[in-house]
Formats: sequence, structure tokens, C-alpha cells
Amino acid sequence: MKKVLVLGAGQLARMMDLAGAPLGMDIKAFDVRTNNVVHPVDPEHIYGDLQSGISECDVITAEFEHVAHNTLEECEASGKLFPSSNAIKIGGDRRLEKTLLESCQVANAKHYIIENKNDFDEALQQLELPIIFKSALEGYDGKGQWRLKSADQAEQIWLDMAKFIADATSSVPQGIVAEQMVPFDREVSLVGVRNTLGEIAVYPLTENHHTNGILSVSVAAPIDKNLQANAADVFKKIAEELNYVGVLAIEFFQVGKELLVNEIAPRVHNSGHWTQQGADTCQFENHLRAICGLPLGGTQLIRPTAMVNIIGEDDISDDIFSIPSVSLHWYDKDKRVGRKMGHINLCGKNETELAERLVHLSTLLNKESFPDLSEFATRYLAKTSQ
Amino acid sequence: MKKVLVLGAGQLARMMDLAGAPLGMDIKAFDVRTNNVVHPVDPEHIYGDLQSGISECDVITAEFEHVAHNTLEECEASGKLFPSSNAIKIGGDRRLEKTLLESCQVANAKHYIIENKNDFDEALQQLELPIIFKSALEGYDGKGQWRLKSADQAEQIWLDMAKFIADATSSVPQGIVAEQMVPFDREVSLVGVRNTLGEIAVYPLTENHHTNGILSVSVAAPIDKNLQANAADVFKKIAEELNYVGVLAIEFFQVGKELLVNEIAPRVHNSGHWTQQGADTCQFENHLRAICGLPLGGTQLIRPTAMVNIIGEDDISDDIFSIPSVSLHWYDKDKRVGRKMGHINLCGKNETELAERLVHLSTLLNKESFPDLSEFATRYLAKTSQ
Repeated sequence: MKKVLVLGAGQLARMMDLAGAPLGMDIKAFDVRTNNVVHPVDPEHIYGDLQSGISECDVITAEFEHVAHNTLEECEASGKLFPSSNAIKIGGDRRLEKTLLESCQVANAKHYIIENKNDFDEALQQLELPIIFKSALEGYDGKGQWRLKSADQAEQIWLDMAKFIADATSSVPQGIVAEQMVPFDREVSLVGVRNTLGEIAVYPLTENHHTNGILSVSVAAPIDKNLQANAADVFKKIAEELNYVGVLAIEFFQVGKELLVNEIAPRVHNSGHWTQQGADTCQFENHLRAICGLPLGGTQLIRPTAMVNIIGEDDISDDIFSIPSVSLHWYDKDKRVGRKMGHINLCGKNETELAERLVHLSTLLNKESFPDLSEFATRYLAKTSQ
Repeated sequence: MKKVLVLGAGQLARMMDLAGAPLGMDIKAFDVRTNNVVHPVDPEHIYGDLQSGISECDVITAEFEHVAHNTLEECEASGKLFPSSNAIKIGGDRRLEKTLLESCQVANAKHYIIENKNDFDEALQQLELPIIFKSALEGYDGKGQWRLKSADQAEQIWLDMAKFIADATSSVPQGIVAEQMVPFDREVSLVGVRNTLGEIAVYPLTENHHTNGILSVSVAAPIDKNLQANAADVFKKIAEELNYVGVLAIEFFQVGKELLVNEIAPRVHNSGHWTQQGADTCQFENHLRAICGLPLGGTQLIRPTAMVNIIGEDDISDDIFSIPSVSLHWYDKDKRVGRKMGHINLCGKNETELAERLVHLSTLLNKESFPDLSEFATRYLAKTSQ
């Protein structure tokens, strides 16, 4: 029985455990807030500290990229860490990420790295408005971002950013990456996996819809072959450059038929949760297979599948269970505004049936917690019924 | 969060827990051998005794039908037990089962209940050879069965059975049910579910293949509509007669286009394990939904799916993971001859692909532990390729 230690004790470690138990794997999670190794589904159950966790496991992985660097180094020294600390660190620092994208020669938004006022002024020269500024560290889900739409906002934004950099308490210096905003048609992501033997498998591209800067809906459906091949090629370049092992997610802006990399996540990803119902082997199992040196499972789409995030809400009507293909996944967290509390997967034999079910689902969920689901679902239904 | 106590701490309780965790359910298991309430996935984790288990849960159910009657009565007194103790007891006693089938007027094999030598002689008069004798209690997986093929075996079989009855230590008197053996074409089973509101949903009929009296392979594939309707009608009659709540499995002998009920199991069932990969909502989740008063999930076949039992074996080649749709489910049990240790589900986009994968799988498993899988798979492939 393989013993796996996951750095991080959130929903991703939890879902890894639920996927790993049937495989006979023993999954434990390291809670970075308490420094305890805990049971991923029952975090009250404490096993010990990081040192004993490292020595007792066969393989170590991470459920998030913002792990303290000394923790990553301690894990890497054991020879058990997959993916590498380098890959995890890159996912946690937009500066390193941009450098990686350039070295792999994959298309991405025009950008400029800012550490001081001179860099800021230079960025304004080099890039066209509108510009989005993103903190280099800990920047996901819309935190630490500023949008510059007209030149007269520049001074105020610089003051805000300078304070943000100065206030940073991270051991690595905080910085800012300026990106020329891309007038994209849609956001898509590719979740893929590479195992210790170098074998690669990628899931179909998933369309992502955000609400207030947080992923709200992902849809996996039959995809244009050229676009998929393009994304798979980008995945291969990045994964091989990093000698990556595990699941890796790549977020893209789609502009016409082009894909520009937005960011990468060196872990299982929210936009891959649909794979629990829509693919042969879900991303959690494939991540475990990859890091444990097993052959990879099928990543084909079984049928169109959507994932709806449950954000800041812990009370969902039981009526949703009356929709035939609904699968509910709670994370067993205390309710908090903006917090990812769970998700709903639903499928259809074709996109029209999926869209109809999505519309039905939207009528059963409360509008405050799912503010634009109804509009999204209606638009999707209109598109699939064309 | 619904708290569910399962009577029995085997693989069925374990898989209920893995299906219930995403729904936010708290599942505990009562181990009848130790009289402890334990964690279904981690049975070393002990919570307390039956009394505290009953008082702390919202709903009680059972993973097997051979629960001591005083335990069932204690649970039923709490008003939390689903299905009823009556339904569970019927599943554990072939005499009660036959009486139920007769009262529901569903077709079943001609039979005679035996408690003494006079009954035995009468059974031989009433039934034609060959006759199979089955113990009334604890009779599954080929234990406590005798086959009478020619009249000269009668005396020896009676002596064996009389000793078996006399040696019984059960609180309920042991007995024997004699059944005229049915020259069936195949064995099929229907797994269905009825919730507290009386709503019913049934999965497609599954074809079952036995090896040495133990289920070895189940296949779910598109099924003749009339046969399915016939089975669904039998399910409805039995479930409503029992005011049944939860998953109920019915095993049939198929003779031509007719279905004769062989036996019923008042629980999730081995022949329904394929639903984990082949149906919208698996039998474990649907059982939990039913007993917790939730609407039932979809029971349609997504795509042809087979389940292969792993019996008496704890070492399976990692190569099986190279088959795209393979899902492995271990039960975390110590190896023992004849013991169900886990199962493998695999799917195909059509029956031919499924059969090809089954053939491929059979080449990767060791012949001693899967003695007739190769033959079964080859025959299945020949049939689907016709």
C-alpha cells in the first residue's frame, strides 16, 4: 500500500484521499496552519508532525503552490517530492512563471515585471492599456490585482501597489507582474498529467466562467481538434521542461483560434473537478497514479459535463438531487464569504441535455449565492440549441 | 449533516462511506464481531458501542442480512432503521423469502421447505430431479448447499443435512429449502432502490457469472426492454409489499424470455458494483439518498460496464492500469482463500470495446486467481462481434 503525504489539508487533499482509498492508498495531509499531519477527510485526527509525516510516507505531493519554501526543501531532501519544489515554486510566483513560459516559447500575454517605480513607468511605456497588475506571490482568485484602464489612474495604482509590496511579510520579496490585458473570447484550461515514466495524458480543454474573479462554472464538452492539439502541445513543452510529475493545469485566454497561456497551477485544479463524473479516471486518481509510478488512466470525455462551484454557501436545496446526473461534492468546511465550500457536477448525453439540466439546476439554487448561473446556463442552452 | 450507522463493517459499509463523504454525510459502521462502532474505512478507529451509535445517528441501515435479531430489534426500536428489520430478516432466511415471493405472486423455482425427514421425503415426491437444497440461514456464496442429481444420493444428503441442522448454533432454528433446479440460460440481477417517499428507480439488469459458487463477473449492457420491464415489475411488487426503503437486489434465473426469482438481498449488492463507473449515481449513493429521504439519482447505463471480483488475491499487476477505463477498488482486507478482496470495474463505448478490454484485462491477471475470466471474456467478445 502506497503512503502519500499531501502538503495542504484542504478540499484537494480530501478529494485525493477519496480517490486514493479504493486504490488501497493511504493518504495523509500536512496542515500548514497547524503544522500537523492529519487525516484529509477527518482533520481532527492528528498523526504527528512534518518530520514523522515525511519519514513514514512513500511519496509527497502538494495540493497548493503557496507552501513555505523551507517546507518544500525539507520534503525534496527526502527524495519523495512530486512534482519538484522548483515546479511548485514556479506555480507560486508569477515572475518565475513568466520566465518559464518564455523559455518554453509558448504564447502568453505581453508582460513586464515590476519591482520599483522605474519598472512601473517602463511597463506603462512597453504595454498598451488596459493593463492588469498582478502580485507575484499569492495572487489567485482575484486577490492582489489592479486594473489600469486610463493613464490618470496610474499614480493611485502605483501608490496602492507600492504599499502592497512594502507590507508583504513573505520570506521571498513580493513583486508585481504587469500584463497587457487580452481581449479574449473565452477562458479555457487544460488539465493534464505526466507520470514518473514521462508518459503524458491530457483531458479535453475546459471552458471556464468566472464570477467576481472566482471560478464559478467549468464546462467540458467536445472540443475543436486543432485547439486541443495546440493546448496539448503547450502542456508537453511545459511539463517536459519542468520534468514534471503529477497533474498540472494550464489556464489559457482564447483569442480567435489562438491560445495564450494565462497561468499554470502545479496541482490538481478546480477546473478539473468535472473529471470525477465526466472522464474514465478523475484528475485526483491520475495525480496519485502519476506520482506513484503507475500507468495513467483514460482522460477522454465520457459525455459533456459541467462543474458548478458552491461559494460561501452551505445550504443547498435537496431538490437538486432530482436532476438525474447531479453529483454533489461538499468539502466539509465552515461557511465563509467567498470560500469554496463544494461543487456540483452534472452531465448530459449531449450538450443540449447538459445545458437544459444546467438551466434546471440554476432554478433550484439561490440567486444570491449563484448570481449569474442562470444567465450563463440560458446562454449556453441558446448556443447549444442553435 | 446526516449521520448514518451501518450494521456491518465490511466492504459495503466502506463503499457507502466513500460515496457518502462527498454528500457531507457522516457514516459509521457497527462491527458485529467486536460490537464496536468503527470508522468504515479505518476500522481501527473505534467510536463506542451499539447503544451510543444508535443514539448519535440519524439513520441506521445494514450492509448484510445476517444481523442478530436482537440487534435489529434494538435498532428498529429507535425508529431509525431502513430498510425494516422485517425486510432484513427475510433476506437472511430462505423460508421467509419464499413465503414473500409467493405472497407477491412473482415467478420463482418450484420449492419445498424442509425441517425433518418427512419433509425431505415429501420434497422428493413433489419436485423433479435435479434438486438443490439450500440452508435457510447464512446460505450465500455456495455454503450450506447440496445437489441431488440421482435418487441414490438421497440418503447420504439427508444425513449431511440432518447433521447440518442439528449442529446449527443460530438463535433461529436452521432449516432447508429444496428447490427444483432450473435449467437456466443465464443468471441476471436487478439492483433497484426505493426511497422514504415511495419513489422507485432501477438499474439495468446485470448478467452475472459465477465461479465455484461465488460471483466472479457482472456485466451491465443494453438490455431487452421487455425483460427489463418484467424485472422492474417484480422489483416494484416486492419493494412495495415490504414498504422497502433503500437498495434491494433481486437475483433471477433467466429461462428463455422468462425470469424466475432466485433470491433477494435487502442491501447494496456485489452485482451492483459496476454502477460506480457505469451509472449516473452509484448504488451506494442511491442507498444513502433513499434512507435519508432524498430524491433518487439516475440509474441509466452510461455505457457498457463490467465488474470483475478479486477473490482471495491481494496482488494485482500494475499493468492493469494501462487499460484506459480500469477502476480498481480494494477493500483493505487481509488475504484469505475465497475472500472478496476487491473488484475491478471497466467500461467501453460499446460492448465490443468492453469485451476487448475484458480480454486484455484477463491476460494481465493471474490464472490461478481468475480461473475462468479468460474464457468468459473470449466468449463475450465472440458474442458481441457476431
